[in-house]
Amino acid sequence: MKKINLEDKLSKFSEHWSPKVIAEMNDYQFKLVKIEGEFVWHDHPDTDEVFIVIEGTMQIEFEDRTIELREGEMLVVPKGVRHKPYAEEECKVMLVEPRGVVNTGDAEGDLTAPNDDWI
Amino acid sequence: MKKINLEDKLSKFSEHWSPKVIAEMNDYQFKLVKIEGEFVWHDHPDTDEVFIVIEGTMQIEFEDRTIELREGEMLVVPKGVRHKPYAEEECKVMLVEPRGVVNTGDAEGDLTAPNDDWI
Repeated sequence: MKKINLEDKLSKFSEHWSPKVIAEMNDYQFKLVKIEGEFVWHDHPDTDEVFIVIEGTMQIEFEDRTIELREGEMLVVPKGVRHKPYAEEECKVMLVEPRGVVNTGDAEGDLTAPNDDWI
Repeated sequence: MKKINLEDKLSKFSEHWSPKVIAEMNDYQFKLVKIEGEFVWHDHPDTDEVFIVIEGTMQIEFEDRTIELREGEMLVVPKGVRHKPYAEEECKVMLVEPRGVVNTGDAEGDLTAPNDDWI
């Protein structure tokens, strides 16, 4: 049992769109990710997904609207809902989701990151 | 689907030791709580529990040590591990745990708060 400092963990990586696991609670994982530019349209058919913005601003595009999240704001994307994250400038985000969730969901491709990648 | 602003939610209540639910992801809940002073010794026999400090400083006392958490730090308290939260001055904390978890765990009493209390 060890406390986790978010700034410290964020200083340990620089690549974009590659979530790093920092903690596990039961079968759920807390991940940090740095994003910049456009991600791919995808959904997670089996689970909701939580975004919490730690620093910066991001948008999540949905089929019927776009939601902007700033530092200190969070959103639960329901399972099966297609979405495309985007950030004009680098944004630092915490994700919470079950162990085993792949970043690109149903749309595996060039942006699919290694799963269960701890820092 | 609506974004959640943590500062906005924190402005909606003032009582201590009474977690407010702000979001649900699958069968897990995100809660905000303001704490000050000493809580009770307790554990959660069936689940881990996550503490994320949003503002201020808190301590979590365990049987063999005390861990201090400051803003931007988090801790996963494993299921069944006895702990006692404490804050000398008001501290604002996000909790993540399964729906239905009672704040005082196995030690119900005066500090037991209403469950599933949304803001």
